[in-house]
Amino acid sequence: MSSVAANGGKGPTPGRLAAVYSEVQTSRLNHPLPLPSVIRGSFKIVDGPASSAAGNPDEIAKLFPKLFGQPSAVLVPTGSVPSEMNKTLKIGVVLSGGQAPGGHNVISGIFDYLQDRSEGSTLYGFKGGPAGIMKCKYVELNTDFIYPYRNQGGFDMICSGRDKIETPEQFKQAEETCLKLDLDGLVVIGGDDSNTNACLLAENFRQKNIKTRVIGCPKTIDGDLKSKEVPTSFGFDTACKIYSEMIGNVMIDARSTGKYYHFVRLMGRAASHITLECALQTHPNITIIGEEVAAKKQTLKNVTDYITDIICKRAQLGYNYGVILIPEGLIDFIPEVQQLISELNEILAHDVVDEEGLWKKKLQNQSRLLFDFLPQAIQEQLLLERDPHGNVQVAKIETEKMLISMVETELEKRRLEGTYSRQFKGQSHFFGYEGRCGLPTNFDATYCYALGYAAGALLHSGKTGLISSVGNLGAPVDEWTVGGTALTSLMDVERRHGKFKPVIKKAMVELEGAPFRKFASMRDEWAIKNRYISPGPIQFIGPGSDSINHTLLLELGAQA
Amino acid sequence: MSSVAANGGKGPTPGRLAAVYSEVQTSRLNHPLPLPSVIRGSFKIVDGPASSAAGNPDEIAKLFPKLFGQPSAVLVPTGSVPSEMNKTLKIGVVLSGGQAPGGHNVISGIFDYLQDRSEGSTLYGFKGGPAGIMKCKYVELNTDFIYPYRNQGGFDMICSGRDKIETPEQFKQAEETCLKLDLDGLVVIGGDDSNTNACLLAENFRQKNIKTRVIGCPKTIDGDLKSKEVPTSFGFDTACKIYSEMIGNVMIDARSTGKYYHFVRLMGRAASHITLECALQTHPNITIIGEEVAAKKQTLKNVTDYITDIICKRAQLGYNYGVILIPEGLIDFIPEVQQLISELNEILAHDVVDEEGLWKKKLQNQSRLLFDFLPQAIQEQLLLERDPHGNVQVAKIETEKMLISMVETELEKRRLEGTYSRQFKGQSHFFGYEGRCGLPTNFDATYCYALGYAAGALLHSGKTGLISSVGNLGAPVDEWTVGGTALTSLMDVERRHGKFKPVIKKAMVELEGAPFRKFASMRDEWAIKNRYISPGPIQFIGPGSDSINHTLLLELGAQA
Repeated sequence: MSSVAANGGKGPTPGRLAAVYSEVQTSRLNHPLPLPSVIRGSFKIVDGPASSAAGNPDEIAKLFPKLFGQPSAVLVPTGSVPSEMNKTLKIGVVLSGGQAPGGHNVISGIFDYLQDRSEGSTLYGFKGGPAGIMKCKYVELNTDFIYPYRNQGGFDMICSGRDKIETPEQFKQAEETCLKLDLDGLVVIGGDDSNTNACLLAENFRQKNIKTRVIGCPKTIDGDLKSKEVPTSFGFDTACKIYSEMIGNVMIDARSTGKYYHFVRLMGRAASHITLECALQTHPNITIIGEEVAAKKQTLKNVTDYITDIICKRAQLGYNYGVILIPEGLIDFIPEVQQLISELNEILAHDVVDEEGLWKKKLQNQSRLLFDFLPQAIQEQLLLERDPHGNVQVAKIETEKMLISMVETELEKRRLEGTYSRQFKGQSHFFGYEGRCGLPTNFDATYCYALGYAAGALLHSGKTGLISSVGNLGAPVDEWTVGGTALTSLMDVERRHGKFKPVIKKAMVELEGAPFRKFASMRDEWAIKNRYISPGPIQFIGPGSDSINHTLLLELGAQA
Repeated sequence: MSSVAANGGKGPTPGRLAAVYSEVQTSRLNHPLPLPSVIRGSFKIVDGPASSAAGNPDEIAKLFPKLFGQPSAVLVPTGSVPSEMNKTLKIGVVLSGGQAPGGHNVISGIFDYLQDRSEGSTLYGFKGGPAGIMKCKYVELNTDFIYPYRNQGGFDMICSGRDKIETPEQFKQAEETCLKLDLDGLVVIGGDDSNTNACLLAENFRQKNIKTRVIGCPKTIDGDLKSKEVPTSFGFDTACKIYSEMIGNVMIDARSTGKYYHFVRLMGRAASHITLECALQTHPNITIIGEEVAAKKQTLKNVTDYITDIICKRAQLGYNYGVILIPEGLIDFIPEVQQLISELNEILAHDVVDEEGLWKKKLQNQSRLLFDFLPQAIQEQLLLERDPHGNVQVAKIETEKMLISMVETELEKRRLEGTYSRQFKGQSHFFGYEGRCGLPTNFDATYCYALGYAAGALLHSGKTGLISSVGNLGAPVDEWTVGGTALTSLMDVERRHGKFKPVIKKAMVELEGAPFRKFASMRDEWAIKNRYISPGPIQFIGPGSDSINHTLLLELGAQA
């Protein structure tokens, strides 16, 4: 344990300067961060061809008249000695949405870029997410302030928030802040929604001839913000490795004890990338991937039977234990559950739920069957726990416990039929918050630093409406590519309340993609034979410390 | 990922030889294990003075007529070159009870001792715990078989079990196995119960002139098997560091988000050592220590108020988040809860629980008040979920969720009184199974190896009824002391069913001990100021990799 204040603090200061650090935290502070060679040296920014949109380009063109079609940009070395450009900059940075390991390094990267290439520049951190922009709540970042956050987890340097800049009034507030601070640029570190918002801000500023440029950075542990040019979102690598450490431990426990089935729910409501990556890292007996469940139009009964079948098959082989991975958003992928929820919302809004169950007659046949199939605790939860709008709170359902209960019931049935005779003990786990604020892996630390440094370079060159893009990640850092991708090129539209809204579509697990195919080719073996891998705790030095997650490696391999 | 089979496997073999390992797992296989210098060189075993018992020596003397009073033993260097003693040995080893990181290294230590000092000896591993002894189910351990388990977590090399050798019939079975395998010695790796059992076996063999000697090894992540000579049980160090990594991550998340109170329940039903150690490692805002709750005769309402008071105080300071640690066994420490449970068991056995609640009149006044104070979900759980004997299942109560619910109710009351006006969001966690089978820390790996090596030496010298004891753990490994402590000296008796039963009393958290006093001196500051420490993932190389847990360090310091 040591005090960080010793490392440059001058008496009581805000943020972490008075923090007490563990040995590992302290050692990470001075962990060197290599930069891609192109951005270390002298470079120029070269524009690519005009871009289009991910879908409905005509509508995107209407929504972004100034920015639509703009090219992506790539940094190329010029061979000469890097020289400071004369212009000093005023830049703001904001963290938007849920935490992801590495966010502090993006900010460090922007800061160091300004120090290295644009001395005399200013970096403001907006506090508490986009609300900080609207309310003009910020802190000026300097070397002493930033130092204790280098290579550290969390978003607490300036904190984050989930507010959105959406209404004309909110846009006005953002404009006022940018004008007041005389901002040349703004870096928005966020997920799909936040980057869409960043692009709307960029368009708005351009339309109004406000000089502030806007650059996005791809953040989310869920791994669902990616494209050809943005190979991964930061935080995914660290979060998956933290969860996989725990899963590996639980696997060895299962094998040692021989009597538990561990049902592990993993964070990630929209896409199942985390679950897939953890499966590739650890080789569980059963893994449910939401996108596959949806593609195959599976019912909850199908999923339950799939699990139960494997449990029975394993029992015949003498294995009365196992590990099962479940994505947090599983039930959102099951159409019949969505149908039941919407009927329930309708009924709960207008009718009385009588104890005799007469209200159930209002459910359609399929929904009624599903409702009766659900464990009693889940039935009660659906009927009793509502959000402030009176709606059923799907997000509160502990899917892993629901599945344990349904599997128990199914096994009991099979026991009566004589096809199962063992004891079943389910243990439930949810791994979520533990992974969002861990110390970033060497990969995430370096990747984030490059993303931030690149964002600085893009703003310095006058770019706007791009998302910082660092590529060729399978190669040594020296050879990583650096540039910016037109945010409009990632967009499509969705119709909401009769209007077209721009969206960056979440990248879902592709059933034809290399990671899923690898998993699908091995899962039958993992189900029956025990191929558990225990990745162990994340290492910062020595063996394993520079490994990259399987999803990224497989996707890079498939591209190559 | 690499296959372990490459490291010495010859085609399909049992155990882990066909396992696929992560980079970190593989790197751990060849991690060198230093030995204390006294056991590396030539040593003799010196007996100390005659011993007594921890309590009721007269009764212990009656229960252990052959072993009571025997001295503890200590290894001292002789200065000459170590020579192999001529006698070859046949030794059995068994893992008993719950998993703890390092068990495989104890076995490796015994094996290597035999290889180094008693060539031609045989080591049998009894499979599935003490049942393996009774049923004579074993595997002969050899270099290839053991190799893949070196420095690895889990107990799956030979697996463990919770059976006890208790009845005359079971003792007979154990004797038969020892005679059949012609065992010179047996090493029992277990907790307080298993070591008591080991001593009963040793006494029994001695009484019947069976040559098999018995040596125990102190195992439990709970940390509640320790004494002056046995400074810690193995596994505690690793488990606490795994939990502390997660707690540290959750703390940074809490600070970053600013809107959650994380209630973390930690494994450890009997004693609160794990919770105390994790508190010392991470500095949470609130920590409940069961032993203190019991000593102060606190009620559930007291505990709830203590938590709620701090939440309100923090709200006034602008902190609407925090982290709270709770030992798994908390409610076992609260007398009024025990009283309620016993009344409920009585009522449930004889009466009908009517829906109108008339049955509640049978509860004593205090129990009735407590029952009404409990959240509805807990009330239902107490009434509905019973074990096979019809008893209330206390162990199934999710204490962290219960406390969240009670704190919510209390805060609602204060909101109406006008003394609290913020939003409270509780998030529950249980960290348990994740910590029992992790890769052992460098400390646990080395400590276990020394314990096993020492057990080999003690058996080789003809000792029985001792527990392997490695001390001076604050010094470099070279200077660690090695010996064996008379198991009878750790014992007391308990009266069960009218008879005296020998027990090794669980070492509880001592409120006058150095670890608790350190915690108590700092908790008020941690409550209000945020002094969070994030220990980060366990490192095997570099900074932090050789650290020792705070509990052990503080206890060693207090002794010095």
